[in-house]
Amino acid sequence: MIDLQPSHTDTLPRMEPASPTPLERPDPSTLLVELFQNDDFDQVRLALVEHHPADVAHFLTILSPRDRLQAWQLLLPEQHGDVLVELPDAVRETLTDNMGAEELRASTEGLETDDVADLVGDLPDDVAQELLSNLADQDRARLENILSYPEDTAGGLMNPDLLTIRTGITLEVVLRYLRQRGSMPVASDHIAVVNRDNVFRGVLHISDLLTRPTDTLVSDVMDVDVIEILDSTPDREVAKLFVDRDLISAPVVDESNHLVGRITIDDVVDVMREDADESFLGMAGIQKDEDTFAPVIRTARRRNVWLGVNLVTAFGASWVIGQFDRALEELVALAILMPIVASMGGNAGNQTLAIIIRGIALEQINRHNARALLRKELQVGLLNGLIWASIVATLSFLWFGNPGLGVVIGAAMVINLMLAAAAGFLVPMTLRQFGIDPAIASTVLLTAITDAMGFLVFLALATVYLI
Amino acid sequence: MIDLQPSHTDTLPRMEPASPTPLERPDPSTLLVELFQNDDFDQVRLALVEHHPADVAHFLTILSPRDRLQAWQLLLPEQHGDVLVELPDAVRETLTDNMGAEELRASTEGLETDDVADLVGDLPDDVAQELLSNLADQDRARLENILSYPEDTAGGLMNPDLLTIRTGITLEVVLRYLRQRGSMPVASDHIAVVNRDNVFRGVLHISDLLTRPTDTLVSDVMDVDVIEILDSTPDREVAKLFVDRDLISAPVVDESNHLVGRITIDDVVDVMREDADESFLGMAGIQKDEDTFAPVIRTARRRNVWLGVNLVTAFGASWVIGQFDRALEELVALAILMPIVASMGGNAGNQTLAIIIRGIALEQINRHNARALLRKELQVGLLNGLIWASIVATLSFLWFGNPGLGVVIGAAMVINLMLAAAAGFLVPMTLRQFGIDPAIASTVLLTAITDAMGFLVFLALATVYLI
Repeated sequence: MIDLQPSHTDTLPRMEPASPTPLERPDPSTLLVELFQNDDFDQVRLALVEHHPADVAHFLTILSPRDRLQAWQLLLPEQHGDVLVELPDAVRETLTDNMGAEELRASTEGLETDDVADLVGDLPDDVAQELLSNLADQDRARLENILSYPEDTAGGLMNPDLLTIRTGITLEVVLRYLRQRGSMPVASDHIAVVNRDNVFRGVLHISDLLTRPTDTLVSDVMDVDVIEILDSTPDREVAKLFVDRDLISAPVVDESNHLVGRITIDDVVDVMREDADESFLGMAGIQKDEDTFAPVIRTARRRNVWLGVNLVTAFGASWVIGQFDRALEELVALAILMPIVASMGGNAGNQTLAIIIRGIALEQINRHNARALLRKELQVGLLNGLIWASIVATLSFLWFGNPGLGVVIGAAMVINLMLAAAAGFLVPMTLRQFGIDPAIASTVLLTAITDAMGFLVFLALATVYLI
Repeated sequence: MIDLQPSHTDTLPRMEPASPTPLERPDPSTLLVELFQNDDFDQVRLALVEHHPADVAHFLTILSPRDRLQAWQLLLPEQHGDVLVELPDAVRETLTDNMGAEELRASTEGLETDDVADLVGDLPDDVAQELLSNLADQDRARLENILSYPEDTAGGLMNPDLLTIRTGITLEVVLRYLRQRGSMPVASDHIAVVNRDNVFRGVLHISDLLTRPTDTLVSDVMDVDVIEILDSTPDREVAKLFVDRDLISAPVVDESNHLVGRITIDDVVDVMREDADESFLGMAGIQKDEDTFAPVIRTARRRNVWLGVNLVTAFGASWVIGQFDRALEELVALAILMPIVASMGGNAGNQTLAIIIRGIALEQINRHNARALLRKELQVGLLNGLIWASIVATLSFLWFGNPGLGVVIGAAMVINLMLAAAAGFLVPMTLRQFGIDPAIASTVLLTAITDAMGFLVFLALATVYLI
């Protein structure tokens, strides 16, 4: 299980001066796709061996699920594990669903323990159990330890395979130990220092190991002001810490300060990427982990959740309009203009919403500045409302020759843009209060409010002043 | 200028067993805000010295621009540079706009050259020139070299301060050289190997330096299959490479394979974060780098661009409705129901849009699978269109007791959801053809199409079959 050297050989061609660099050549997975589309399976098989697991994973990701299974068969079994690790969850599932427990176990050979945990964590319980029971005792214990943490905590993210030293030795001894050991964990910018009870004491930076006199004691040069991460820390906070402090790796400790693992920047980068993906898709009403090339039925079903919610809110808006059927019958211009009020409100509200959701994610909003921020957004809504209302009022007057209509739509727009600003602030703040990720549900709720209120304000004002 | 050790001391308290870890304590910048709100300026001044530059930067970010300038004055001048580097561009500007060239130059002392370049690149030209002219010749030459690259390329991202070795020496000699040098660049997981003409030959991994026998020659152990990055490579591709290959640092070369700098993961993480931020805000019609706490006037002006575009498209949709004023006068139910068709189309179209924009960003879409992907999205649109159309048709019939109306709205919805799928695919693909970032302009265009087409299809069908 424990393989501290990269378990694949990097097979990009050796660089000669003035030869094209990797990034000037076409995307390697594009070449694979072309061979595959031409049914050139022997060539694909050969080419797959030569490619980095990340490129193979990308190639599999952009195939349809049926082609993907076929291409998977062309890989050497030894490649399976490294490629599975690189795949997005949704795509990985399409492959592991078709693999037996023994095949899965074989694919985990040579992988780092945290990567195996990632993989096993996404399997159905019975398959995961079967896989675990086929492992050697020590490997199983390590794996079960990580799996006992929620996936989105430091404990679930960490690698338990550690290199540690004690305080009382010299750098000379550390150097000799490393040379005897013959390998180092990936992304090792420091070595953890523990006492005999495995209590974390500090770290020896590799830069100090390489630049300080060799007769220095570890205790004299070790860094005790280092950031250690508690195993229960949410992964988003871990990511924030890595970004803020420019960390490469960080020790993970349990409640009693025992060293239990380490987190490396590559895992943190994956967390950041998934997080950004989830927010981006969530704003558009799509659940995370959507496989771009998933079958029609599966995709349609996954997307129906938010379409259903949207339908309810759309009927709500229609119900509002229905309350003003008399006014609409008398003045058809109202029906023609009413979507403008709703649309401008939705647009302005979404701007506020995005800023507030980002502000929440970046922990910018606290009880000291929340009120000022709401006031600011209302003022922006008022100001832009006045600007665009005057334009819309003028255009509406010119179109329908009805000055009262211009005044009414202008007033409705100002009011709706301020309501939109309030909703853009309050919807995500309220969702957060209830522990719901604001990035997921806010857009549909906001649009429901700006639509319904836009129609209501405009038609109500029109009923009072024009009809 | 060149300071290879972190230029601030990490002042988090020393960890004792069972003491709370940093992440259990409240966000340090929250404490600063509280002191500041209580006008406890002496305390703030003292506390600021104790905080990590990233925490100070976060504290400044969540203040209003006026408070921010006041808090800035409480910092020690020696802290200015490190804090400026950590600030988002939009916030940094609010401070540098109020600093003179000499004050700015002083703040760059002790910073890494790539960070200085970042800072100088955002200054007005005359201030940047004045700052440059105050630098020592060698520092200026290094800086002008980075500034000669576009900011969003590997050249603009790299640090030119390098540690290099030759092939013909033993690891023993390398170790002695490092110990003599007394420091190493941050994030050093390897040392670049060059020939006497500074042509890049490969890298010596620090792990090999520490684990191989000391009498090994660099040429025998150096990695020549390493990924070198051409200086003109776009920063997004650099980020992709770092993520795919789990890189910590990578050498940057020019066209003739001379080593010109190195890129480290912390800079790449910043690129990823800004990129995700830009896409997220762009989908909501907000320009990147918006300062959450910017003054009302500035914020209102920045947001008006997309509100203006939205107004044009909203009037376009109204014009479409206006073509059917007769039908609306005869059957007011059309006015009541028409937003449903538009809204469901907009929602479904945005789902497709998000998947395609993500697919473009992740380079998932190529000429082999584009057609299949469009077909898939159309099929999803058809399937979900049929499902929701039947529900909407039934509800509309029950509401207005008009079976023809149910059929017409159902048919309109199926058509609009398929049009929405087509638009969700074609809008971003077309924008990309014209070199426009699809994440920025797509949403407004898509909503324009789904609104106008929704109204058109529904009202046209109604005119033909119901009026």
